[in-house]
Amino acid sequence: MGPWEQYTSEAFQTLFREVQRFTRYVYILHVLSWDQETYMPPGATEARARQISTLASLVHQEASSPRIGELLAQAEADAQAQGWGPDSDAVGFLREFRRRYDRMTKVPVEWVQAFSKLTSEAQVAWRQARAENNFARFAPYLERIVAMRREYAQFFAPYDHIYDPLLDEFEPGMKTAEVQTVFQQLREEQVRLIQAIRERPQVPNAFLYRAFAVEKQRAFVRDLLAHIGFDFHRGRIDESAHPFTTSFSIYDVRLTIRTAETDFFRQALYSGLHEMGHGLYIQGVDPAYDETPLMGGASLGVHESQSRLWENLVGRSRAFITWLYPRLEQTFPGTLADVSPEDLYRGINRVEPSYIRIEADEVTYNLHIMLRFELEIALLEGTLRVQDLPQAWNERMQAYLGLTPPDDAHGVLQDIHWSQGAFGYFPTYALGNVMGVQIWERMTQDVPDAYEQIQAGRFQDVLGWLQAHIYRVGAKYPPKELLQRVTGQSLQPKPYLDYLWRKYRDIYGLTA
Amino acid sequence: MGPWEQYTSEAFQTLFREVQRFTRYVYILHVLSWDQETYMPPGATEARARQISTLASLVHQEASSPRIGELLAQAEADAQAQGWGPDSDAVGFLREFRRRYDRMTKVPVEWVQAFSKLTSEAQVAWRQARAENNFARFAPYLERIVAMRREYAQFFAPYDHIYDPLLDEFEPGMKTAEVQTVFQQLREEQVRLIQAIRERPQVPNAFLYRAFAVEKQRAFVRDLLAHIGFDFHRGRIDESAHPFTTSFSIYDVRLTIRTAETDFFRQALYSGLHEMGHGLYIQGVDPAYDETPLMGGASLGVHESQSRLWENLVGRSRAFITWLYPRLEQTFPGTLADVSPEDLYRGINRVEPSYIRIEADEVTYNLHIMLRFELEIALLEGTLRVQDLPQAWNERMQAYLGLTPPDDAHGVLQDIHWSQGAFGYFPTYALGNVMGVQIWERMTQDVPDAYEQIQAGRFQDVLGWLQAHIYRVGAKYPPKELLQRVTGQSLQPKPYLDYLWRKYRDIYGLTA
Repeated sequence: MGPWEQYTSEAFQTLFREVQRFTRYVYILHVLSWDQETYMPPGATEARARQISTLASLVHQEASSPRIGELLAQAEADAQAQGWGPDSDAVGFLREFRRRYDRMTKVPVEWVQAFSKLTSEAQVAWRQARAENNFARFAPYLERIVAMRREYAQFFAPYDHIYDPLLDEFEPGMKTAEVQTVFQQLREEQVRLIQAIRERPQVPNAFLYRAFAVEKQRAFVRDLLAHIGFDFHRGRIDESAHPFTTSFSIYDVRLTIRTAETDFFRQALYSGLHEMGHGLYIQGVDPAYDETPLMGGASLGVHESQSRLWENLVGRSRAFITWLYPRLEQTFPGTLADVSPEDLYRGINRVEPSYIRIEADEVTYNLHIMLRFELEIALLEGTLRVQDLPQAWNERMQAYLGLTPPDDAHGVLQDIHWSQGAFGYFPTYALGNVMGVQIWERMTQDVPDAYEQIQAGRFQDVLGWLQAHIYRVGAKYPPKELLQRVTGQSLQPKPYLDYLWRKYRDIYGLTA
Repeated sequence: MGPWEQYTSEAFQTLFREVQRFTRYVYILHVLSWDQETYMPPGATEARARQISTLASLVHQEASSPRIGELLAQAEADAQAQGWGPDSDAVGFLREFRRRYDRMTKVPVEWVQAFSKLTSEAQVAWRQARAENNFARFAPYLERIVAMRREYAQFFAPYDHIYDPLLDEFEPGMKTAEVQTVFQQLREEQVRLIQAIRERPQVPNAFLYRAFAVEKQRAFVRDLLAHIGFDFHRGRIDESAHPFTTSFSIYDVRLTIRTAETDFFRQALYSGLHEMGHGLYIQGVDPAYDETPLMGGASLGVHESQSRLWENLVGRSRAFITWLYPRLEQTFPGTLADVSPEDLYRGINRVEPSYIRIEADEVTYNLHIMLRFELEIALLEGTLRVQDLPQAWNERMQAYLGLTPPDDAHGVLQDIHWSQGAFGYFPTYALGNVMGVQIWERMTQDVPDAYEQIQAGRFQDVLGWLQAHIYRVGAKYPPKELLQRVTGQSLQPKPYLDYLWRKYRDIYGLTA
């Protein structure tokens, strides 16, 4: 008997089969998008957009139908009547599908269509605005997006804060007030840390931008990921303009990186480790959850906790770089001959405030996120006008990072996300950083010699622990419950801040 | 006003939009299959099969619904009442969609499902049978496939010959008797030509299997196809185990080749030219036909006429090879230093009977096809039992090519097609060869210096003529009508046979 057949509710079984069917369509949509970003010829842009839009409409129409709502309600009633346990897969399935169903049905189709049209146009306007360095061109679209996002929040009223329904889409159950509390502590400490680092001599890192042959970069990253445990029998790595991870089932997980001859470390190696973190998560989900809402991670924040864990806590550790160094020497003989493993470790971890989020180091990254989070809230609360956004952006950049962008293209116009209507999404990056350290510290109670193992090139205990405690359960538990179950704690910034201070005190010789 | 809005029938306009929608799903199915053959990791096989099967069921269900049948009948009535011209796009649309609709609805869903299950199992059995060189393992499946194909023909009764409904699927309007007449003439002449060649000294071609660096092969083929006129803005070339062409709209045409260091000419260069012929055809279809049944070629035979035209009439011509030679020298310096352009031309066109169809040269290829066609007919007529098939195969191989396969893996078990249930498909290859020469000869009336142009590396007049006369009209006319319109002739084997004799008399110094 398969794991799902034990739930003897006709409504549940019918719903389950229907959900499997929609989920296959969703996977197919992922194939279409993956191809679009990797191999699709440029002339196919409009044809592909029509294909995606046609299939996405079908999914929405079928998945949000009243019939599905009735099956869901009946299955929930059956679960209650039959006393299915709170830890059962079926209860997780119903909770997560209920959340998605309500999201789909609470928002009128007309709103979705109007928003989709607006954000299509807004993305075109944003591209022009950024190219021309002219915020005014984008501003009218952003005003309408903010107005529509305010409308959107109303569909989920009542709420404690207008930002809650937006945040909840990406981080189920998380409240704006909780994020504000955590961010408050992060901000103070991280600004203080950045200031302390700024007073110390900078570590050199120019050697990172030496020439590394692109073909060798590809093979190196592929071999590294395979060695760590990414399963290439159930996955691939390709290239795209912006690295991403997607999946078409737990049997088909696709990562992308970029390659540039003189930017090996950021664009290929550390992007590869970051995306691998997402990929290991998906590959580790219980196979019984494939084609269900439990496939994938608990939330964007938990997902990001894993990509950042592999990228930073593993990949930017002294242990890892010490192990990696001779492998680099072997693949790229002589390129780093005058650079010691310790030089490499320090260079890779150099802290340097910059204008651009996606180029930010581990210490400054969260401040880029907090700035966006605070501006999003102010826009939604109506305490900040879109026309004043560039000035507010620049003031905060100065306050947090001590920098003022030379122009809006390097400031408020740098990210595509707002033009896509994504509000509530950015904070998950910083939440992921924080959760990642909490999870790592809990893991080291069971694997106390994790860094010794990593320095010896052994990753199976770390990966095995994460698989058993995080990856395997997929989206069965809401993210806050998962964190509590795994670490015994709620979201806490302290472990993350302690980690940062410990690591950078050492690298920069801070006395504080 | 778009080209389709002029047809003021509500039924037609509704049908048109519905067909556009299904066609997008069909294009999406092509994306899924392309990815499966090119980049998909092996672990995803079953997950992908579920995705394809789910979407294919949806397309079948929607496209064959009674509502679509009613819209189609009403649109046909409106076309008649309003007197839409026989050359109008809408009449072509209705004719081609009627053909497809009838195909879908005349065959019961239960038969389709049973056949799909049978052929899935039969492909597994065929793979095992071929690996073990044991026809008996495959025979019971083939018996059931033949029995089901006989049933299938009944759904289209009455017919002149039981093979007609099968052939009609791939070559609409073509009758078994017509193919038999044409093949009769081809067989006699081609067997005679092969015997004449066999009496002459063989031309050397070992130099074709020298080492050509794979990366350079890829770049060479890509540049060559771009030079000839394949539009890489609306297409790509990738690699797969078996070369093929597919498309996801006229804006996205995907070719594949194989690469092997010591088999450049067959696997990369001539496969590339062959697939390019299919690709040029699709890229040349009237953009107004995209997402309609008129997109794509008039038939498999007409499609193959174009792949074979570019591969053989262009690519294996003395003019082309003379032009190509210095380009090869430039990319692969020294590799062919001791081979003259004339040696290369003769080597590329070496005739050598072999067991395997896909390795066959221009002269022996059709005999591989005729053998299969005759055996398919005998199986369907019931005059040949499956258990006697290997012997019948070997006898015909001896009669046509003077060879007896060493075992069934090199004989009756070599092709996957019968295990997939594809009966009626093989003859289109030989029909394509014949039509290709008829079309080429008509073209040379308008472009008399075609070969001089090719020898100078100019392809635009040849391509432009084919675009204007064949590619642009897509599937607007049935294949026989298209051939008649373009060449003023019905299907005639004589031009093809004259071409073969002329070309090979010269290469082999035949006196006949």
